[in-house]
Amino acid sequence: MFKKILVANRGEIAVRVIRAARELGIKTVAVYAEADKESLHVKLADEAICIGPASASESYLKIPNIISAALVTEAEGIHPGYGFLSENAGFAKICAENNIVFIGPSPEIISQMGDKATARATAIAHKVPITKGSDGIIKDIKEARILAKKEITYPVIIKATAGGGGKGMRIARNEKELEENMVAAQTEAQAAFGNPDVYIEKYVEEPRHVEIQIIGDKFGNVVHLGERDCSIQRRHQKLIEEAPSAGINKSIREKMGKTAVALAKGIKYDSVGTLEFLVDKSGNFYFMEMNTRIQVEHTISEEITGIDLIKEQIRVAAGKKLSFTQKDIHIKGHAIECRINAEDPANNFLPSVGTLETYITSGGVGVRVDSHSYQGYEIPPQYDSMIAKLVVWGNTREEAITRMKRALGEFIIEGIETTIPFHLKVLENEDFESGDIFTNFIETHFNN
Amino acid sequence: MFKKILVANRGEIAVRVIRAARELGIKTVAVYAEADKESLHVKLADEAICIGPASASESYLKIPNIISAALVTEAEGIHPGYGFLSENAGFAKICAENNIVFIGPSPEIISQMGDKATARATAIAHKVPITKGSDGIIKDIKEARILAKKEITYPVIIKATAGGGGKGMRIARNEKELEENMVAAQTEAQAAFGNPDVYIEKYVEEPRHVEIQIIGDKFGNVVHLGERDCSIQRRHQKLIEEAPSAGINKSIREKMGKTAVALAKGIKYDSVGTLEFLVDKSGNFYFMEMNTRIQVEHTISEEITGIDLIKEQIRVAAGKKLSFTQKDIHIKGHAIECRINAEDPANNFLPSVGTLETYITSGGVGVRVDSHSYQGYEIPPQYDSMIAKLVVWGNTREEAITRMKRALGEFIIEGIETTIPFHLKVLENEDFESGDIFTNFIETHFNN
Repeated sequence: MFKKILVANRGEIAVRVIRAARELGIKTVAVYAEADKESLHVKLADEAICIGPASASESYLKIPNIISAALVTEAEGIHPGYGFLSENAGFAKICAENNIVFIGPSPEIISQMGDKATARATAIAHKVPITKGSDGIIKDIKEARILAKKEITYPVIIKATAGGGGKGMRIARNEKELEENMVAAQTEAQAAFGNPDVYIEKYVEEPRHVEIQIIGDKFGNVVHLGERDCSIQRRHQKLIEEAPSAGINKSIREKMGKTAVALAKGIKYDSVGTLEFLVDKSGNFYFMEMNTRIQVEHTISEEITGIDLIKEQIRVAAGKKLSFTQKDIHIKGHAIECRINAEDPANNFLPSVGTLETYITSGGVGVRVDSHSYQGYEIPPQYDSMIAKLVVWGNTREEAITRMKRALGEFIIEGIETTIPFHLKVLENEDFESGDIFTNFIETHFNN
Repeated sequence: MFKKILVANRGEIAVRVIRAARELGIKTVAVYAEADKESLHVKLADEAICIGPASASESYLKIPNIISAALVTEAEGIHPGYGFLSENAGFAKICAENNIVFIGPSPEIISQMGDKATARATAIAHKVPITKGSDGIIKDIKEARILAKKEITYPVIIKATAGGGGKGMRIARNEKELEENMVAAQTEAQAAFGNPDVYIEKYVEEPRHVEIQIIGDKFGNVVHLGERDCSIQRRHQKLIEEAPSAGINKSIREKMGKTAVALAKGIKYDSVGTLEFLVDKSGNFYFMEMNTRIQVEHTISEEITGIDLIKEQIRVAAGKKLSFTQKDIHIKGHAIECRINAEDPANNFLPSVGTLETYITSGGVGVRVDSHSYQGYEIPPQYDSMIAKLVVWGNTREEAITRMKRALGEFIIEGIETTIPFHLKVLENEDFESGDIFTNFIETHFNN
């Protein structure tokens, strides 16, 4: 086992990794940008090294500074957390060249699954279902008609190659709509981007975002920990995650789990990772992408399985065997995570900067708080706005929801605005309560 | 279900009850002494009423004030917490007379189990093993000899009737020691208390303090939630509790559980309660007393079973059936609770009063904090010194211990002294780590 590791990150995930390391008896080195001098991860680590000014590109993304900090402190491994350098194959390679263990998969795997086209090809090769598409620009309506009818099947979505923000995007449910909307999409694309090119893909109606957590070791063992439902997103940013998913039954769970494990075994995956899928109302699932790192919402999988994912991630990186098999994983109860962000939901979610004048966290039975914040802490405006992850566990989804409402209600934060009132609104929504959620839930229910 | 209840307590247990009520959709009324104006339970409740000056006898123990507060706010029930009026049969009776539900057992049961002699007789009647004794003053050595040999069996302990603090107390392992030590005990008792009378009881060597958590409803259902080991005590004050006990195997657990359930069913017990036992090294257990209320350490039973005991206690008081049966109770993992007290372990555990200048609680996976404290809170010197309960869960006892060490290590409290350093010393002790604990553990290992 490692004697000492460096945590190449900040905020709650740096605190999370330090906690895991401490329970494993491993010393920790925190790195920090000048603006993070007072962050909790700096206080909790055994050593802390300043790696540059506030700007992430000059600190948390500055590979030479991080490698130097590791070498100077004789850290044997580097945990990248999420974001920043966590999916940077070049960084993983440089770690290896300096005889430092990158606590994550190999640079080759990061590259393979990080590139959309290669990831898609890898999924196909391992029989992971994906949404069918034109795999390139549509030449003419004739090609579109054949593809949509024979290959993809309706409904399909027409997207502008140069597109973004919904512009040049049209749904077609039959041939007539395809003909009309392709012209409309091309016209709109030309107007918006000066480029009329479009491609088509299978359209999954009101899908859930469901992801499978997996973990593998260097001995070829891979286990999945069930799914997380991350459909509650605002502008593609996850806000509330839950496990299990209210829309996934045991048989779909097993099917998705087996599919994810087969892919991971096929590519000899030896760390924590997540396969993200869209799931339609019939339980068909389509691979979107793989995250080759720990995710923000890993906490809820921990709550329903009792597994400490980061401890296990560090163990397998040190060459240990997984301490459990698939048979040992029993999902118990229901967990929900709310991301408490320093944003003002009453003002279009604008960042809310300032000092936490009062900060009294929720507590008691079934409540977990993962955070780097504390009373008196001044939130640096340079980084992401998440100040705490509030996680609850309950015997049932209903108990978890009432517990989350209770926990959100008692969290006292003064000095800044937070997303707590918005979370409460979502949790009180009838459709949310009945589990009827999908990726456009926030847009369709809250109009913001 | 109740619409509103009053919480006749303060500190963390008042906060705990408010949380449970909120999850059940019940409004809460806090009562507080003037010295507790700034306590978290006052902030969290829906309403708060001042019931008197700091002195407990003028506030938290002042029955007319509490009843008035309940009547004025139209609270339908009163939760007494632990301590204060929680085992006061008279208070329970007055509640009933005012058409307020006392959230606990009936006044008759409180009286029956509160009186040592009646409780002992009740235990015998329901075949609960108790330590045998002389049941009164020993007349002469002849009587002592017959009792010790035929009834009680060696080793026995000779105790002064007027005794206390270990004075006039002698252990005898055979007849010769009995003869010698009875004279010695009588002489010492005469010198210390002016009264030479002694009685004898079975002596349990290096026993564990093990208690069984039970809960019953008004339909005759009673379920036990396994045991808690509370052997780590200092001067009869519990410091660290854990569940399950490292010294109890499945067969003893079942035997103790069945014994406790039989007694509770026999007396038609219809609330939460705890039967406390001494357990010897062979697994024999002897009933000491029953607590007819929720206990401080109920948290660890919640952690290993997933049951919210206070929610369930409120439900059964409202006349609902238990929401689970014995078959639904599955013990998973291991939980430990450390009582964080405002005391100075380096100075004979003297109370440490003052303001919490810094108060950053532990968090992350497997960590639960139950507390009424927060940064800036001034601890009132009038009440008990507990400022937080730190509770951890782990898959194994070993994981729970390393997690507790981690959680104790990251808890930042400035402005007062706390028992955290002492807890760390106990947790790092080899005998504790191997589970080899008993009620005199602190005295024999730490000499204070």
